[in-house]
Amino acid sequence: MSNLDSLIQDLVIANRILAKEDVVDAYGHVSVRHPDKPSHFFIARSLAPDLVGPEDIVELDLDGQPVGDDGRQLYLERFIHAAILAARPDVMAVVHAHAEDTLPFGIAAATKLRPVIHSGSFIGSEVPVWDIAERFGDTNLLVTNLEQGRDLAKCMGHGSVALMRGHGFASAARSIIEVVRLSVYLPRNARVQMNAMRMGGKPKPLSKGEIAARAAGYRPNMPETWRAWEYWANRAGCGDKIGTPHDHSPKG
Amino acid sequence: MSNLDSLIQDLVIANRILAKEDVVDAYGHVSVRHPDKPSHFFIARSLAPDLVGPEDIVELDLDGQPVGDDGRQLYLERFIHAAILAARPDVMAVVHAHAEDTLPFGIAAATKLRPVIHSGSFIGSEVPVWDIAERFGDTNLLVTNLEQGRDLAKCMGHGSVALMRGHGFASAARSIIEVVRLSVYLPRNARVQMNAMRMGGKPKPLSKGEIAARAAGYRPNMPETWRAWEYWANRAGCGDKIGTPHDHSPKG
Amino acid sequence: MSNLDSLIQDLVIANRILAKEDVVDAYGHVSVRHPDKPSHFFIARSLAPDLVGPEDIVELDLDGQPVGDDGRQLYLERFIHAAILAARPDVMAVVHAHAEDTLPFGIAAATKLRPVIHSGSFIGSEVPVWDIAERFGDTNLLVTNLEQGRDLAKCMGHGSVALMRGHGFASAARSIIEVVRLSVYLPRNARVQMNAMRMGGKPKPLSKGEIAARAAGYRPNMPETWRAWEYWANRAGCGDKIGTPHDHSPKG
Amino acid sequence: MSNLDSLIQDLVIANRILAKEDVVDAYGHVSVRHPDKPSHFFIARSLAPDLVGPEDIVELDLDGQPVGDDGRQLYLERFIHAAILAARPDVMAVVHAHAEDTLPFGIAAATKLRPVIHSGSFIGSEVPVWDIAERFGDTNLLVTNLEQGRDLAKCMGHGSVALMRGHGFASAARSIIEVVRLSVYLPRNARVQMNAMRMGGKPKPLSKGEIAARAAGYRPNMPETWRAWEYWANRAGCGDKIGTPHDHSPKG
Repeated sequence: MSNLDSLIQDLVIANRILAKEDVVDAYGHVSVRHPDKPSHFFIARSLAPDLVGPEDIVELDLDGQPVGDDGRQLYLERFIHAAILAARPDVMAVVHAHAEDTLPFGIAAATKLRPVIHSGSFIGSEVPVWDIAERFGDTNLLVTNLEQGRDLAKCMGHGSVALMRGHGFASAARSIIEVVRLSVYLPRNARVQMNAMRMGGKPKPLSKGEIAARAAGYRPNMPETWRAWEYWANRAGCGDKIGTPHDHSPKG
Repeated sequence: MSNLDSLIQDLVIANRILAKEDVVDAYGHVSVRHPDKPSHFFIARSLAPDLVGPEDIVELDLDGQPVGDDGRQLYLERFIHAAILAARPDVMAVVHAHAEDTLPFGIAAATKLRPVIHSGSFIGSEVPVWDIAERFGDTNLLVTNLEQGRDLAKCMGHGSVALMRGHGFASAARSIIEVVRLSVYLPRNARVQMNAMRMGGKPKPLSKGEIAARAAGYRPNMPETWRAWEYWANRAGCGDKIGTPHDHSPKG
Repeated sequence: MSNLDSLIQDLVIANRILAKEDVVDAYGHVSVRHPDKPSHFFIARSLAPDLVGPEDIVELDLDGQPVGDDGRQLYLERFIHAAILAARPDVMAVVHAHAEDTLPFGIAAATKLRPVIHSGSFIGSEVPVWDIAERFGDTNLLVTNLEQGRDLAKCMGHGSVALMRGHGFASAARSIIEVVRLSVYLPRNARVQMNAMRMGGKPKPLSKGEIAARAAGYRPNMPETWRAWEYWANRAGCGDKIGTPHDHSPKG
Repeated sequence: MSNLDSLIQDLVIANRILAKEDVVDAYGHVSVRHPDKPSHFFIARSLAPDLVGPEDIVELDLDGQPVGDDGRQLYLERFIHAAILAARPDVMAVVHAHAEDTLPFGIAAATKLRPVIHSGSFIGSEVPVWDIAERFGDTNLLVTNLEQGRDLAKCMGHGSVALMRGHGFASAARSIIEVVRLSVYLPRNARVQMNAMRMGGKPKPLSKGEIAARAAGYRPNMPETWRAWEYWANRAGCGDKIGTPHDHSPKG
């Protein structure tokens, strides 16, 4: 299998994992940058992630326009991916989703989502909330053009996640595996924080030093990360399609 | 397949989806207006939605009486459907269900259910609560005659949802797909609102302008809606029965 | 199939349903009175309800002793069933379980579990809490003899449910179907009440008149009840074993 | 099957059960002491517990080093097991996991996790919280050496559980069955306590006398414990691999 085929295979697996782990339902999507053409990226055509196969992957440019348009329906919100990948050369993969337990933090302005569990450390020390209404007034809340996407990317800044008020979140990372992991543990971190808050007092978040120590020790293809990828792929019925950790090394 | 057979097929699929997505259990039902005889509608005989097949669909009139009665047991609460379809010529499909997470808002009078997530925008800016006891005193809480059904329809007014105190909700829309979508996202919106409230402060709902913008941009058979129908049908084991978006266009 | 075989079949189905609906796990049990010998009852040998087959059903007397002892291990807490069936000639079937969401109401003395949804009406207007420590001091919390069972039955009185502090609940009804339904909707009622309480204010319970109206209109083998039995049996993989509503009529 | 093969089989089953019951996901592990060489223990190689088979079990010493190293990747946190087994000759089996609903109690310092349900009695009267930062400053929160493991073991003391702030818990018991049971009911106890607290007032925990009475009456291979093991193994798809209670008697 070529590197490109293998990358697209991983993108398909990521779609299935995000569906199985309840990060996406019919809505939500995941993209990966083209390894050889950094101004292009891959994402599914307009289709529920759980139903995506390799034949459903399309190639878009950083304006969100299809490369070699074959007329297939595209995600309305592909501009989220285009804008973040344009703004952040360090980012290789992006997720947008409506995972239910992240949503309360987008509408309860008094409370910030913070990393309270070690697997949540990659969300940064405090997750910003982007409110589309601030610059764009009354919309249908969807990110349907580049300007909106760029505003969201600006809110994310150098971080890895931005919550979107009344809508969902966008997350970004250096690899497909990493962005999936981030997106699966984000709602879990949110639930733990909510539950701790309800017992009164202020839950203790990870310290900045702990967040840094975790980031420093992390490589996307280390065995501990692969273990999770293998586990989630098996749960999603794709265990036979993931190859070995070795196959993934060159993809960074 | 004739238009009518295809509509009944969709009604069967809607039954299965509502069961799979935990909107209904043994109780709850979904109906659709007869496309050619607007004073008739289709609904299952008294049967758990998850077990409904095309042969279980019966035709009723707007008094809730069977057309060509064959003696099969009917839902006690079919008057909910009859009354709403009679009061609202714009409505083509109705759901009644007891989805668990909508129930707290029916008994906690101090708090209104409001749209706090974009997929909840179709519930309107504030969901009314109908209390059967107000006009009918001590009942078994079920809507077992037309008079009660009409009172519920009046409470719903021009809206799309009414909560029923201590019982459940009724929802209404312009198509089967739309009423299913509304009914699936209603409990999710309720959970997000409850979770945000528990963190203190007042969760920010969608603005009236946002609700209007979402309604303006919505057509029941647009690709984004079809994507959800296809996803839910597959989850419910009916993926092979949905045809294509094209088949659905004439049904509005 | 004889009436007795069919009753035992129903008891097996009840075991499977209670497991599937998360009312019981490895622990918890359901019994039914012998239709011809009212001082005997049927219950499984010591086995997780999900694994119970007809061959696992044993016959006990109202002292909790086996009829024709074949040495099989019995439930330690069979005295719950023996004592309730002895105290209550109107009761035909009993469940004891640890359903998770009923447990908070057993340890939060300030709050009573009340019927807040129509399907919870059969729990009565307020559920008593039995604390084994009141009369028996420091125990392992299990009901391991007749004296303890009688004390629990006394707490239940003429009602249908008693919560057991730090342990679970006991429920009683006029038929297997009815006690299963009661036990499945009890945790749901508890969750709705907890969620409504968390939004502030006092959730509105069913009125005494409503509870009475629901009780008056209820017969265990009416089509609406059968619909739930059929649904739950199908979910539990026993859909082919339930016969027809007609088969159940004589069992009251 | 030899005693050792049978013990390893049980360890595999324990891995599968902990995965199925949501105690572990890709992360978390369970170990058992070597019955003949008390300074060795068995644990899986670095692999998600749900995917573990007998061929994945490795033998380590109480420094956490492999016996007969074959180069396979080991769990980074194997020192949790090594240190607890070294400090506690009475302990035969250890679990480390991140079960979601235990996590709030690790970060909400004002509230102690206490046994509030009878199946939670084995956690002791109050669960200590170990904060790695107290002695080791800013780390990645993982227990990656013996010194950290010993500090955790010290916090556990003579008890059976220690929560780990922002990370998870460690539990210890006299047999595999016992440590699995403890670890499955720990999150349930946590949920019940959280739900009771949210209704206001102070939930009533088990008394010390009740905790003692339950401990006194408990033997790992008694029928009531076996019933749970059999149930969980069946749910995890290993029902055919558990043998009979008799096979387990010598393992204490």
